[in-house]
Amino acid sequence: MKTKDMLQSHPRRHPLAESLAPCVDSCFECAQACTHCADACLNEQEHLPHLVACIRKNLVCADICAATGTVLSRLPEADDQAAKALLQACLTACRACADECERHAPMMEHCRICAAACQDCATTCETLLGA
Amino acid sequence: MKTKDMLQSHPRRHPLAESLAPCVDSCFECAQACTHCADACLNEQEHLPHLVACIRKNLVCADICAATGTVLSRLPEADDQAAKALLQACLTACRACADECERHAPMMEHCRICAAACQDCATTCETLLGA
Amino acid sequence: MKTKDMLQSHPRRHPLAESLAPCVDSCFECAQACTHCADACLNEQEHLPHLVACIRKNLVCADICAATGTVLSRLPEADDQAAKALLQACLTACRACADECERHAPMMEHCRICAAACQDCATTCETLLGA
Amino acid sequence: MKTKDMLQSHPRRHPLAESLAPCVDSCFECAQACTHCADACLNEQEHLPHLVACIRKNLVCADICAATGTVLSRLPEADDQAAKALLQACLTACRACADECERHAPMMEHCRICAAACQDCATTCETLLGA
Repeated sequence: MKTKDMLQSHPRRHPLAESLAPCVDSCFECAQACTHCADACLNEQEHLPHLVACIRKNLVCADICAATGTVLSRLPEADDQAAKALLQACLTACRACADECERHAPMMEHCRICAAACQDCATTCETLLGA
Repeated sequence: MKTKDMLQSHPRRHPLAESLAPCVDSCFECAQACTHCADACLNEQEHLPHLVACIRKNLVCADICAATGTVLSRLPEADDQAAKALLQACLTACRACADECERHAPMMEHCRICAAACQDCATTCETLLGA
Repeated sequence: MKTKDMLQSHPRRHPLAESLAPCVDSCFECAQACTHCADACLNEQEHLPHLVACIRKNLVCADICAATGTVLSRLPEADDQAAKALLQACLTACRACADECERHAPMMEHCRICAAACQDCATTCETLLGA
Repeated sequence: MKTKDMLQSHPRRHPLAESLAPCVDSCFECAQACTHCADACLNEQEHLPHLVACIRKNLVCADICAATGTVLSRLPEADDQAAKALLQACLTACRACADECERHAPMMEHCRICAAACQDCATTCETLLGA
């Protein structure tokens, strides 16, 4: 992702640029991982009945991460309350999805990778919220 | 929108179905209105310099409304914390966009229609959050 | 949806406004119905193994319909080739999802409603492509 | 992005995995770059009147790239006609946006970066369509 270079070329300097760029990147990565994990789970024939909660959390987390990555790419003001609430939603969705995916990680590699992507994203959201 | 019929056909009864359906509908309506308003503003040649803040709020509001309508269509549990934070983000974005659009409403019909869509959406989000 | 009113308030007159507005509306309606149907199918415990193809088509159709409704709300030129290819993708996805949902319609009301939404959307896409 | 690892952990082997992974990655990268470039252009105060076409192409390209990255992450069959038409839409939108951004690249670094992201994405779409 060229997020950092894009931020430096933007006519307005963003006060939180240093924590914004990694958060944008991890939002898109997590959206990809969650979308992919939902499809992988759907194809786990015999395990499918145990993966319904995981698929549903994957899909919600993907929706929220994609929206968060997009909204942050529009450089909201540092005190924008909608962006802050969205970051809070993203952090919460990522933690819930990471917890669920981790339960299946010992048996399913896609859940292990997805849990790690969710945790990374939660961490960058938390850093940006605290910046 | 067939949201209400869809909800009645869902295998799980949702405890908040009565406030969920109008909120889903108004989220998609508001996403459409804000996306359209941003493009209309971009084409207001001589007024464009005064509409930059409006366009930026339109785009962010459209992103958050689309994500909220989608996530709510996945029937999150009534106490889902990510969905609640997302609803809070949606309510905040709708209010901010309604305020900005109302300033231009006397001169631009698209801003007047969009402000009304944002207010409707804010109202249904607030009702669902309080349900 | 206020799509028709928004179109009339746009500073540029769109030559295809009459077929554009119903297509935008049915794209958002279909995105909602498909997202909802996927979640309903995921909760059909004993039937779930037979609904995997349906869920996957629902999710893809929802993604493409949401993107199409959004892109058309940005009023592309009547001869825009990307918008035409997107409409073609939307028409194809809607037909594939309608076919799959119809197979389950006798037993599942949500698939019946969703199949109808997909067919409506396919029809408005076809009309707009031919306009 | 962990797309390649995700693909290897998916229960179904995808026949086009080698050209699928880079295409998914470049779709998300291009969606980010275009969203960001639109906002940067909106903030180019004196140049804004000359950037309206660029902003509109950025927004449409971002919508289509995000949908394409998401749909491909759901691993459509290699002969899926909706996915093929969507790839065609993505290729067309990326080329149109790259052409427009390149015109502004000598003066605006964000347009230069965005044009490169669009060209990369067009190339990976073309490779996948030909695979």
